[in-house]
Amino acid sequence: MLELDPIRQYARSFFEENSGCHGWEHTERVLALARRIAVAEGADLDVVSASALLHDIGRREESASNGACCHAAYGAELAGTFLESLAVDRDVIQRIVHCIAAHRFRNSLHPETLEARILFDADKLDSIGAVGIGRAFQFAGEVGARLHDPAVDPATTRPYSIHDTAYREYLVKLRYLKDRMLTASGRRLAKERSAFMDAFFARLNDEVAGEL
Amino acid sequence: MLELDPIRQYARSFFEENSGCHGWEHTERVLALARRIAVAEGADLDVVSASALLHDIGRREESASNGACCHAAYGAELAGTFLESLAVDRDVIQRIVHCIAAHRFRNSLHPETLEARILFDADKLDSIGAVGIGRAFQFAGEVGARLHDPAVDPATTRPYSIHDTAYREYLVKLRYLKDRMLTASGRRLAKERSAFMDAFFARLNDEVAGEL
Repeated sequence: MLELDPIRQYARSFFEENSGCHGWEHTERVLALARRIAVAEGADLDVVSASALLHDIGRREESASNGACCHAAYGAELAGTFLESLAVDRDVIQRIVHCIAAHRFRNSLHPETLEARILFDADKLDSIGAVGIGRAFQFAGEVGARLHDPAVDPATTRPYSIHDTAYREYLVKLRYLKDRMLTASGRRLAKERSAFMDAFFARLNDEVAGEL
Repeated sequence: MLELDPIRQYARSFFEENSGCHGWEHTERVLALARRIAVAEGADLDVVSASALLHDIGRREESASNGACCHAAYGAELAGTFLESLAVDRDVIQRIVHCIAAHRFRNSLHPETLEARILFDADKLDSIGAVGIGRAFQFAGEVGARLHDPAVDPATTRPYSIHDTAYREYLVKLRYLKDRMLTASGRRLAKERSAFMDAFFARLNDEVAGEL
């Protein structure tokens, strides 16, 4: 059984008190979700928990390098070195490292193990549902975007501009995430969160038109 | 019948392209809501529409004066002078000016007319429901607050800090707005929007705990 306390403490040190929509609180939510899915899917809870805690420790470097450094690959490397220092079994380290390296949506590295699929799903689930809605509007506030534009055209509007609304993010990305899930439990949770999010944005359009 | 185009153009000039949660889009939403309520309540549509368009034109001055200037009183003054320049009937001007002066939540000036009560309700309605949720998270993003803290204590946390989350605003203010409505139509809309908002934050707490 892995001791999670030192792993959490190490991972926590990579985040400011409040570091926005991929901050430490995102990690804690992904951990809670990943553990829940791991139990339902009969996965290794140690590997899932450790990789959830460590999955975004490469983000700071990715931001500092303006995206040149991939946070998944770099985070996996950091995690491997750290876990060696804890004298964790070589095999367990390899399984954790694979989860971290393969959790990124845009990566070509595919999650090959049940534990890696669980981390992937838990990470994406945190972008949808009520949490996803909150994160999308918070991000819009951080970049100075408008609250809403029901007629936004994702093709002709730019990210990080005042057109980068929560609704644009929903149209471009969030509403499709449910189709990318890799585990049965992830699919079930995503379907339900996604339906809530669909209803929210439909309602937002009605309210903005003065119809509700 | 009042011509609204010059009034809209004048009011619009007080707002930047994107001026946050009390920006021009808030005014357009309040206008749509106020007109809908005005029809249902049999109110004067001209007075309601003009006062909705003009209700926040004093905000810029209130911000610039760090709150020393009250946007409702100052906006009413500006609006009166402007409407005189359009040669609007003295009586109509007085009715519009009263709506604007009395729309502020914290003001001691109470809305005395049906039209003033409608503007008051429409303005508050824009803080609840899906729009209110979006505005609350957007504001949190603008001030660099956390996404969520289910255990936030409003009594010991401060506005404009990282603790000034959307959930804090909901606990302190938004969930009570439905009880402040002054028209039957406003009450009906507020009740429905508020129920949706209650469900959203309950869901958010469940999701953050990994339970949904």
